[in-house]
Amino acid sequence: MPLVSIIMGSASDIKVMSKAAAVLEEFGVDHEMRIISAHREPDQLFEWAGSLEDRGVKVVIAGAGMAAHLPGMISALFPLPVIGVPLSGGLPGGVDALLSELQMPPGVPVAVVAVDGAKNGALMALRILAASDPEILEKLKGYTRRMCEDVQEKDRLLQEKGYKGFGEN
Amino acid sequence: MPLVSIIMGSASDIKVMSKAAAVLEEFGVDHEMRIISAHREPDQLFEWAGSLEDRGVKVVIAGAGMAAHLPGMISALFPLPVIGVPLSGGLPGGVDALLSELQMPPGVPVAVVAVDGAKNGALMALRILAASDPEILEKLKGYTRRMCEDVQEKDRLLQEKGYKGFGEN
Amino acid sequence: MPLVSIIMGSASDIKVMSKAAAVLEEFGVDHEMRIISAHREPDQLFEWAGSLEDRGVKVVIAGAGMAAHLPGMISALFPLPVIGVPLSGGLPGGVDALLSELQMPPGVPVAVVAVDGAKNGALMALRILAASDPEILEKLKGYTRRMCEDVQEKDRLLQEKGYKGFGEN
Amino acid sequence: MPLVSIIMGSASDIKVMSKAAAVLEEFGVDHEMRIISAHREPDQLFEWAGSLEDRGVKVVIAGAGMAAHLPGMISALFPLPVIGVPLSGGLPGGVDALLSELQMPPGVPVAVVAVDGAKNGALMALRILAASDPEILEKLKGYTRRMCEDVQEKDRLLQEKGYKGFGEN
Amino acid sequence: MPLVSIIMGSASDIKVMSKAAAVLEEFGVDHEMRIISAHREPDQLFEWAGSLEDRGVKVVIAGAGMAAHLPGMISALFPLPVIGVPLSGGLPGGVDALLSELQMPPGVPVAVVAVDGAKNGALMALRILAASDPEILEKLKGYTRRMCEDVQEKDRLLQEKGYKGFGEN
Amino acid sequence: MPLVSIIMGSASDIKVMSKAAAVLEEFGVDHEMRIISAHREPDQLFEWAGSLEDRGVKVVIAGAGMAAHLPGMISALFPLPVIGVPLSGGLPGGVDALLSELQMPPGVPVAVVAVDGAKNGALMALRILAASDPEILEKLKGYTRRMCEDVQEKDRLLQEKGYKGFGEN
Amino acid sequence: MPLVSIIMGSASDIKVMSKAAAVLEEFGVDHEMRIISAHREPDQLFEWAGSLEDRGVKVVIAGAGMAAHLPGMISALFPLPVIGVPLSGGLPGGVDALLSELQMPPGVPVAVVAVDGAKNGALMALRILAASDPEILEKLKGYTRRMCEDVQEKDRLLQEKGYKGFGEN
Amino acid sequence: MPLVSIIMGSASDIKVMSKAAAVLEEFGVDHEMRIISAHREPDQLFEWAGSLEDRGVKVVIAGAGMAAHLPGMISALFPLPVIGVPLSGGLPGGVDALLSELQMPPGVPVAVVAVDGAKNGALMALRILAASDPEILEKLKGYTRRMCEDVQEKDRLLQEKGYKGFGEN
Repeated sequence: MPLVSIIMGSASDIKVMSKAAAVLEEFGVDHEMRIISAHREPDQLFEWAGSLEDRGVKVVIAGAGMAAHLPGMISALFPLPVIGVPLSGGLPGGVDALLSELQMPPGVPVAVVAVDGAKNGALMALRILAASDPEILEKLKGYTRRMCEDVQEKDRLLQEKGYKGFGEN
Repeated sequence: MPLVSIIMGSASDIKVMSKAAAVLEEFGVDHEMRIISAHREPDQLFEWAGSLEDRGVKVVIAGAGMAAHLPGMISALFPLPVIGVPLSGGLPGGVDALLSELQMPPGVPVAVVAVDGAKNGALMALRILAASDPEILEKLKGYTRRMCEDVQEKDRLLQEKGYKGFGEN
Repeated sequence: MPLVSIIMGSASDIKVMSKAAAVLEEFGVDHEMRIISAHREPDQLFEWAGSLEDRGVKVVIAGAGMAAHLPGMISALFPLPVIGVPLSGGLPGGVDALLSELQMPPGVPVAVVAVDGAKNGALMALRILAASDPEILEKLKGYTRRMCEDVQEKDRLLQEKGYKGFGEN
Repeated sequence: MPLVSIIMGSASDIKVMSKAAAVLEEFGVDHEMRIISAHREPDQLFEWAGSLEDRGVKVVIAGAGMAAHLPGMISALFPLPVIGVPLSGGLPGGVDALLSELQMPPGVPVAVVAVDGAKNGALMALRILAASDPEILEKLKGYTRRMCEDVQEKDRLLQEKGYKGFGEN
Repeated sequence: MPLVSIIMGSASDIKVMSKAAAVLEEFGVDHEMRIISAHREPDQLFEWAGSLEDRGVKVVIAGAGMAAHLPGMISALFPLPVIGVPLSGGLPGGVDALLSELQMPPGVPVAVVAVDGAKNGALMALRILAASDPEILEKLKGYTRRMCEDVQEKDRLLQEKGYKGFGEN
Repeated sequence: MPLVSIIMGSASDIKVMSKAAAVLEEFGVDHEMRIISAHREPDQLFEWAGSLEDRGVKVVIAGAGMAAHLPGMISALFPLPVIGVPLSGGLPGGVDALLSELQMPPGVPVAVVAVDGAKNGALMALRILAASDPEILEKLKGYTRRMCEDVQEKDRLLQEKGYKGFGEN
Repeated sequence: MPLVSIIMGSASDIKVMSKAAAVLEEFGVDHEMRIISAHREPDQLFEWAGSLEDRGVKVVIAGAGMAAHLPGMISALFPLPVIGVPLSGGLPGGVDALLSELQMPPGVPVAVVAVDGAKNGALMALRILAASDPEILEKLKGYTRRMCEDVQEKDRLLQEKGYKGFGEN
Repeated sequence: MPLVSIIMGSASDIKVMSKAAAVLEEFGVDHEMRIISAHREPDQLFEWAGSLEDRGVKVVIAGAGMAAHLPGMISALFPLPVIGVPLSGGLPGGVDALLSELQMPPGVPVAVVAVDGAKNGALMALRILAASDPEILEKLKGYTRRMCEDVQEKDRLLQEKGYKGFGEN
């Protein structure tokens, strides 16, 4: 039974949104990944959103581009946290999706992460689960530690080889 | 039975959207005016949008600010023209509403007019009706003629009095 | 005799605007496609716009980039619906064309769709015709149904193969 | 012992951020409200952020304007959800704060809500707690129901009095 | 017979555009000031623009806000310099008018000055006339000299009184 | 002796600015083309700008990117028309250069054309000269006529071959 | 003999720029404050900028709005640090001045601070002097300490009185 | 012992930031180059920033993209000049990094240069050192002279060969 549901409005969003799935896999957290369009399948969206709570889903990660109504409409239909990932593809930098997901009216919040930031979308979902799950919290701390070590390793390499020897990354 | 439905997401939108109602009144076109929030009443929105066609509504004028999902969601649920009026009040100039209404994905169009342009929203609705209604078409031509005469009158006044005598408008 | 006229200001706009023509062909709706520049041929534009109503055209779809005066000037000359398609090519994201088409003064409306959204321009034209043509309305409903089925098919594929097996789209 | 910590960088942010506190009070959720500046008190920020987990805080709501580093730095120091509320006051619409809070690098997420959206910041915090607290979940559903009823009441008033009788809101 | 024609699309533009008239008066250059709307009176615009050359007009200063098609359409109809003054009133900072006047396609130029910069519009018109009129050129040099002296006087005042004694300007 | 001076701040601007030179050549108008940097050679700029009037230059076309101070500083030093061509290369769409050239303070005007619009820069220079040179005016009218015929030819081709047969342009 | 020169292009900039003077006074650092316009007095600017080094000035703080060429032109004429303070007053948020000061070409740097950030302009000047002046460095540390204490005091007040008792700030 | 410290948040920033290192090498100024992430290694950042003053570092050049908190947090921890280099890679043109580095609150300044302007970052660092080091000042003047000669050489080439013979640069 999935704890997290990753949803996107179009098959063209799979490439970016699969970064979210990869993080959840790495953490061993059960999740589903769905393509449901708010605009092309409003009935399906309502039905699916209505089923989330009963199926035990705790967090939704919704990726959408352009008018990007998907996260906002899910937040209107599902009472638990909805994370919006604005996707580029429309206006430069995905500013259309960004503003459409962010500027929700008082009462119906969406938690937005960076444009194309599906990875951070998954990490935010994990932090939300970690608020009541010490095991995920421990894994998150390990993840943070490894990130830190990775940057330190890069710095060591730079000190050793200098920027001319560092090569393209 | 209304031919045009004016809808907005919040009571705070009445002031701007009533400009649309005033134009329809002036043309003697039957219409309704509703407050239904896409985010706070998704079920009501679905029900109302599903009833439009049977009730004989030919055009919807939807005003919304900030994330402004209202016109797009109606377009997903109603097969006839949906005119979006982006409302200011969120980001400066209403750019959040503007992009959210405009950047609809292929297949589900919204016809957007200027920010806070409720009057033009009504005139576009009338043009749509006029495509099959010669009487409304004649009234539109009269409206255009009067606008033209009004500008000419202003110009005559300017020639007569000069800019110093023209006064604040 | 065309019901819809697709017009653009430059031969370089044909590629995008032909998406509108393709949709109208698919629906079997009679249309014309013209290149007339508001800035390079103002006399021709006036003449052509003046002939639209007599020739039975019900909707104009006007694509224009950069200063993009074409849809607005047609709206000043033709009393029925004018749909503006902002074309990219000038400033990033076509924001110059977008604002130039959208921000029409009260009295002279243009119905704007997404940047480069020629397909939605055609679908909006069809919705306008459908307001008084039940046959087109039925075809539009079929079109919407097929879109919905197409997304559902993509979702089935994703469930079956997973994101790793889905391949680039 | 607070479950939610509301933090802001300046006393001038109290007015907006107290909307978050008011929501948490209404829900009866224990919280604290602090002024700590990332730029003027980096040591205090580190110390406070380091104490959060031990003190049982589950979610942080951080409001900041202009360069708005506060939510991002807390996310670097605290492993549970950090909600960023961009505050206006710098560039028009608070776009400086908005981008600074939103565009976090992969690995260190912030969950951003609308500009000056402190109320939605609190509701997102409540949704996060509700993921493991059925009582808060029930209260959230009641809150949503009341919002819905409130809009319906406004609509009834509009139908009854018309827009001319509705008065300023 | 006017050498310069100041034109605007609406009576609401008189206040800003009269700054241009005041400069031309100060220089003793014959000019006219007209209100003609590109969108509400396309026929009048064509007629007036067609008369400019025969009436001896050498430069047009066109002020327009929002979609701001006026300067561009005049440039399409009149072969001599057209100066565009973007007027604020639509989107913040008049960016809609700015882009609409500036981004003219190759072949049909508009010379744009700052938003609401009617004074600079007039000075540019004078520079254009000065290219073949030594008397206007001399007056322009005197104008520049006086501007310079005025700033120097302000600086002297600041040195004398200090910023505390300078008073509000 | 040049009537028009084309100036740019960097050798990397030659490619775009040579479009201006090509137009002036086509019209047989004497001109010079110079690289002088406002920031790297302020003394040279002053000297060159001070020599313009005596050398008989009537119009300057200045192309600059990024901070783009070149046209504004020339306008401060030369009393006749200065045309600014904002060049892309810095921020997307050349908005940095655009605003830097456009937003000149009252008293010191720059006549700005579209981003990278060197061709229109030259045509504006020709219109300025044409205000007192009937021969150039006649050539400009011929140029406009040929542009018009060129678009008409493209339209004829489209009518003949349809959009599928038109080919890439 | 001034170590720091505060310069602005217009008397209307005194109000904001005097915040910089006030900070330098508080630190007891000798400075001058001048109004010299890059566009209205290019000769005076050159003369003054050429005198800076001989007069012992180590840092210039230049405030300018709109096209804001002042800091960039000084950087072209003076070899030591030039700090640019973008001033609002033109486009919303001072984005015109901001981009004009920031986007300097390689070789001629300007150190830009926040829009209207005259206070930070002065503090950056002090940091520059502090790089070789231990006394100023000590004063800067004291300044930072007092800022920190001030925020802590505000936080204490908030803890004591709660947000309802805190009052407007 | 380094006088200047070049720091960046990610190995992917080395390519741009090495332009700063190359300038410092050319001037023979001792410097270090480090990768330390504000978000992934807050503890390391604090430790390193705390060591700067004792190690004799006089200026920090900090390059960062997206949320770009690095320069601002260093400015909070180090009392001498911090130069921010906004890096592109996030939103188009690096506007996210630009605003995040620029809009620092009063009291904690960052000196920002152009987007990706690492070269100017280094030149500003050298100007800061030159305020108390006559040798570096002399080298800076030579650098400026060579830039000037280089542009003059390009101009000579253009005069000699014309734009057709100049070739791509």
